Amino acid sequence: MKRIDQRNYDDIRKVCIHPHYIQYPEGSVLIEMGNTKVICNVSVDEKVPHFKKNTGEGWITAEYDMLPRATSIRNTRDINRLKQNKRTVEIQRLIGRALRSVVDLKALGERNIIIDCDVIQADGGTRTASITGAFVALHLACQKLVKEEIIETMPIRSYIAAISVGIVQGDPLLDLCYQEDSQADVDMNIVMNEQGEYVEIQGTAEQVPFSRKQLDQLLQLGEKGIQELIQIQKKILGE
Amino acid sequence: MKRIDQRNYDDIRKVCIHPHYIQYPEGSVLIEMGNTKVICNVSVDEKVPHFKKNTGEGWITAEYDMLPRATSIRNTRDINRLKQNKRTVEIQRLIGRALRSVVDLKALGERNIIIDCDVIQADGGTRTASITGAFVALHLACQKLVKEEIIETMPIRSYIAAISVGIVQGDPLLDLCYQEDSQADVDMNIVMNEQGEYVEIQGTAEQVPFSRKQLDQLLQLGEKGIQELIQIQKKILGE
Amino acid sequence: MKRIDQRNYDDIRKVCIHPHYIQYPEGSVLIEMGNTKVICNVSVDEKVPHFKKNTGEGWITAEYDMLPRATSIRNTRDINRLKQNKRTVEIQRLIGRALRSVVDLKALGERNIIIDCDVIQADGGTRTASITGAFVALHLACQKLVKEEIIETMPIRSYIAAISVGIVQGDPLLDLCYQEDSQADVDMNIVMNEQGEYVEIQGTAEQVPFSRKQLDQLLQLGEKGIQELIQIQKKILGE
Amino acid sequence: MKRIDQRNYDDIRKVCIHPHYIQYPEGSVLIEMGNTKVICNVSVDEKVPHFKKNTGEGWITAEYDMLPRATSIRNTRDINRLKQNKRTVEIQRLIGRALRSVVDLKALGERNIIIDCDVIQADGGTRTASITGAFVALHLACQKLVKEEIIETMPIRSYIAAISVGIVQGDPLLDLCYQEDSQADVDMNIVMNEQGEYVEIQGTAEQVPFSRKQLDQLLQLGEKGIQELIQIQKKILGE
Amino acid sequence: MKRIDQRNYDDIRKVCIHPHYIQYPEGSVLIEMGNTKVICNVSVDEKVPHFKKNTGEGWITAEYDMLPRATSIRNTRDINRLKQNKRTVEIQRLIGRALRSVVDLKALGERNIIIDCDVIQADGGTRTASITGAFVALHLACQKLVKEEIIETMPIRSYIAAISVGIVQGDPLLDLCYQEDSQADVDMNIVMNEQGEYVEIQGTAEQVPFSRKQLDQLLQLGEKGIQELIQIQKKILGE
Amino acid sequence: MKRIDQRNYDDIRKVCIHPHYIQYPEGSVLIEMGNTKVICNVSVDEKVPHFKKNTGEGWITAEYDMLPRATSIRNTRDINRLKQNKRTVEIQRLIGRALRSVVDLKALGERNIIIDCDVIQADGGTRTASITGAFVALHLACQKLVKEEIIETMPIRSYIAAISVGIVQGDPLLDLCYQEDSQADVDMNIVMNEQGEYVEIQGTAEQVPFSRKQLDQLLQLGEKGIQELIQIQKKILGE
Repeated sequence: MKRIDQRNYDDIRKVCIHPHYIQYPEGSVLIEMGNTKVICNVSVDEKVPHFKKNTGEGWITAEYDMLPRATSIRNTRDINRLKQNKRTVEIQRLIGRALRSVVDLKALGERNIIIDCDVIQADGGTRTASITGAFVALHLACQKLVKEEIIETMPIRSYIAAISVGIVQGDPLLDLCYQEDSQADVDMNIVMNEQGEYVEIQGTAEQVPFSRKQLDQLLQLGEKGIQELIQIQKKILGE
Repeated sequence: MKRIDQRNYDDIRKVCIHPHYIQYPEGSVLIEMGNTKVICNVSVDEKVPHFKKNTGEGWITAEYDMLPRATSIRNTRDINRLKQNKRTVEIQRLIGRALRSVVDLKALGERNIIIDCDVIQADGGTRTASITGAFVALHLACQKLVKEEIIETMPIRSYIAAISVGIVQGDPLLDLCYQEDSQADVDMNIVMNEQGEYVEIQGTAEQVPFSRKQLDQLLQLGEKGIQELIQIQKKILGE
Repeated sequence: MKRIDQRNYDDIRKVCIHPHYIQYPEGSVLIEMGNTKVICNVSVDEKVPHFKKNTGEGWITAEYDMLPRATSIRNTRDINRLKQNKRTVEIQRLIGRALRSVVDLKALGERNIIIDCDVIQADGGTRTASITGAFVALHLACQKLVKEEIIETMPIRSYIAAISVGIVQGDPLLDLCYQEDSQADVDMNIVMNEQGEYVEIQGTAEQVPFSRKQLDQLLQLGEKGIQELIQIQKKILGE
Repeated sequence: MKRIDQRNYDDIRKVCIHPHYIQYPEGSVLIEMGNTKVICNVSVDEKVPHFKKNTGEGWITAEYDMLPRATSIRNTRDINRLKQNKRTVEIQRLIGRALRSVVDLKALGERNIIIDCDVIQADGGTRTASITGAFVALHLACQKLVKEEIIETMPIRSYIAAISVGIVQGDPLLDLCYQEDSQADVDMNIVMNEQGEYVEIQGTAEQVPFSRKQLDQLLQLGEKGIQELIQIQKKILGE
Repeated sequence: MKRIDQRNYDDIRKVCIHPHYIQYPEGSVLIEMGNTKVICNVSVDEKVPHFKKNTGEGWITAEYDMLPRATSIRNTRDINRLKQNKRTVEIQRLIGRALRSVVDLKALGERNIIIDCDVIQADGGTRTASITGAFVALHLACQKLVKEEIIETMPIRSYIAAISVGIVQGDPLLDLCYQEDSQADVDMNIVMNEQGEYVEIQGTAEQVPFSRKQLDQLLQLGEKGIQELIQIQKKILGE
Repeated sequence: MKRIDQRNYDDIRKVCIHPHYIQYPEGSVLIEMGNTKVICNVSVDEKVPHFKKNTGEGWITAEYDMLPRATSIRNTRDINRLKQNKRTVEIQRLIGRALRSVVDLKALGERNIIIDCDVIQADGGTRTASITGAFVALHLACQKLVKEEIIETMPIRSYIAAISVGIVQGDPLLDLCYQEDSQADVDMNIVMNEQGEYVEIQGTAEQVPFSRKQLDQLLQLGEKGIQELIQIQKKILGE
């Protein structure tokens, strides 16, 4: 059975990562996964949040947003409703946790890293593309800090990437596009490091619950996808 | 090895569910899991949200909050910061998704059910206790709707409960209290129905990523705990 | 003439005050006046508001809220409207003023006391029950401060309690329940100390204004009720 | 003993009420009580609030605000803090209740009256001046509605005015200016109709509670002041 | 051709500037231009904004608002919508820029001047009347600072005033009232100093664009009006 | 004298307009003016704002924002301050007015067009680049509406473009980059149609006011720049 866009069930979409996309941030990439496009900008702030003051450790936080017309129907900007979109809150917490898991906050020193992931075009998997792209931007920013002798050693302990998997009409699929995602019975996001260890698993079944066996299939698919993404990250970063 | 409160690694805490706790809601319970106490009130509103209008289907939504002094340090009320707590947003979306997964929205008819989970004392596991308690309150509310002939049949397709599991100093533990949770390397929340199928899995490793083998251990612990909770729910509901 | 719940015109409802209700606050009670139930938690903060800095004096402030389903019709949470309920503002200012009137702010020292009154079930008289309960919780908190030698002497100068009175169908009544309150021509809240002195009087006639003679009757009823409440407070506090 | 501004203890300040002060509102006055100056504008809206729809009755609501520099120290505008001043909330609820108490809402018909009281210079007693001035502006607006045959008869059942009284250094005083108010042990606002009946009494003692005898003295002073204010209102309104 | 109010095309409206209008501000005027009435209050704050700290320079900022019933239709207060009116934002930025352009911020020293322009009655040209009036209030405030020896020399480098011009039915007109403004094809606000130099030009054509020749006519009219206004300012300030 | 980037005083920067940049909007371009990059997306909504209902006319509104790291220093997102940036308000009103000036709202019919201008990289002139780019996106959207027979004829009456001019160290310059803009004595934005008529002029002098002669020079420079931009627009749109 072929998928909407002719992929096999275990194919990821075409991935392009454009480094140094915006000129001002310490690290910046545009990541494209199929038609999903996210600008990931990394800013380094010499001021840590109050709960890290005098700890000798840094912090990493993420913000996520979409242009109003990143989707087929226009979304009202949050500021016009004076409320942050609830889905946005969930996603930016996920991105922050994921990136923090591979950074040695002591080696970073008392500085705050802010990762802005702004989706300019959305076709499913924006949160996982954000994590995969943000890692590259973060790596670029840390290289810059090392090169400018602001920090001594790279504070990054491992590569990390993320992918979505799901069950659509009974079939487990890797890297869902929006049309697949909107029909999925189960939707799962997996964040994994280069050692194949889990950093985050979020699986949700709104209508049809899933069995242990299905869970195992999804985890296996996810691992395959993430290994491919980490290879792409490595190529971009010249490793 | 004994835990802080003398439990075995696979023991849940003492659970008490007090039905009909508040007099006005259509369904109401106070759930106590150890020292965690949550009031779960279910309100039935004859007006569905706009995206369900003229679909013949109902909807279920959840809200979650804590009293300022449910914790050892007082939290500022959201309204005084004009922003909803980000953790709160994440939790109330989880509770809503979990409960919707076991309700036949067609059988419910075009009405909206609002589940308010208000934590009056927090000692870890408030989101999972909220789901477990909210299910009982929802069941009571649906029984009332059937009894008053507002709906014909019970729209609930399955029991559902939730529990936290985690890895603390290398050991997988069931139903973490706050002190354990604050030291955990991995924290996972599992929502499962009475058929042992997964409705939601959320596992997070901020510092130490987890292997596939550890994941399997956590899933098994979680299943044990949820089966025990569902037995307690059934006793309360007289089944 | 008997009242809805068979009380005499000058009877207060059954009062239960449960001390040490929540485990974390410095002082905590659940007060029940008939079906009205309020959790009163007292927090001690070593940081005074800016207008008390370097004065050697402390401050007391109160916050009041209701669970959404404390009433027969569900209320939207303030945070979802981004505006504090106007009635709430009025009530929390009243509670704060009342409690401050019996505390020696110099003896308290430069620390801030926050009193959270959260109504979990409302059947009239929630603001007066809050004051009566908050006093007990505050007394418990101050005893703890003295016992832990944080302050030297009890900073409380007098007992204080509050009650509502009103005129319903021409009759003056003590301690109105919600059904009476909603039919009242005149509604008055009285806050009084144990010497029988007034701390606050708030009387309102939306439709039928009241004469001086009626005012005198209401003041007398209120004094009777408050004396009874102070006796109950003293029993709980072991005096 | 003479007061700061040479008044006797039972003298009100010089009162000027300028009718038709602003050209657009249906009723408008500038009221000056000593140095306190409030613009009271009355707007008639043909749309009632939802809770009055199809009742045949109208509604009256009030808003109160101060220019930032109405006081000796500049106040930040509410919009810059995104929160309504808590004192403002309390005051506008009082003004609304007071004016509603003298209007026959049936005779008004299904229309909404909004009373805007904007203090341009504050020297104590702004809430009571607002009520006294707003009554005149409301009367002018109702005369206009009758004259234009929008309503048949004047919906106003009685004159109404308000004044502050207080205890300063042991002495009961009528109509406190700001300097007196800031030293007062007891502060009371009284709203009364022309029959000498009470519409609202709000008495507060933050530091020194007051006895029944003192209360009686304050009520008597207030009655004297209000009778004088109602005479001034009648003169302006040509009665 | 005569205008609505019998003026010639190049006549400004009757201008009255009442100095020392409100008693508390360091500088205060009520400016009336025809039926437009604006209270301009100047406050001096010894604390500069953070971007001016340790620069030896001061700052000037402006706030603008309207009473809800300054217009024929009542406007909702900003705080009730939790959003500042967009037109207000534009206007207060204009007023601030205009006044800063004639003040020597070094001579002012490290202090912040806040100019509050509150329109109590609006009949067109409120932003330009605000600038013209605010200059006088600012001048009064600076004179006070010099007289009290808080600053050594007047920090004001030039007089400044503002006026609106526009094209109505093809005719260029000076100082539009509201009725003219609402029919104008082109609306332009000009701010100019006493040397006849431009400080700000804002010209807008929503429907009919304007030619270079029309622009020249409007600039000439504006200059005439501003020269007349500066003469009036000088008379008030006794120069 | 050569400019920072080697341009002549009357040169515009290199302009690239990428049509159909984002796939979902009815019209979309990425406009680059030097290093300034703005995504302009046009959405067509079949629902007009309330003030256009039943008028047979449509409406056009614009929103403008910047990615947090579009600038060398990261800006906090508006939603995190709960307030729209004041500069943003000013700019989006300008963009809306400019585009409305060339559209026949009757020919558009009762539909609302929303133009989103999101700056992804800012190097001066973002508001004028937004207008120039938005016109092309709007044109594309209208062509689509005509092609799909939703409207009969193109509702666009004229081309329109915008450019900034300014005086830097006494020299009038065309199309200022950020570094020039930050040193400018006078900053002016000009919006003009293809007939050379003015739609909007906004000139501001914060420190050094400008003479009539300087104004004339700036207007001439602006006209030159806009004519060049309109040629580029025409090429893109195939005219």
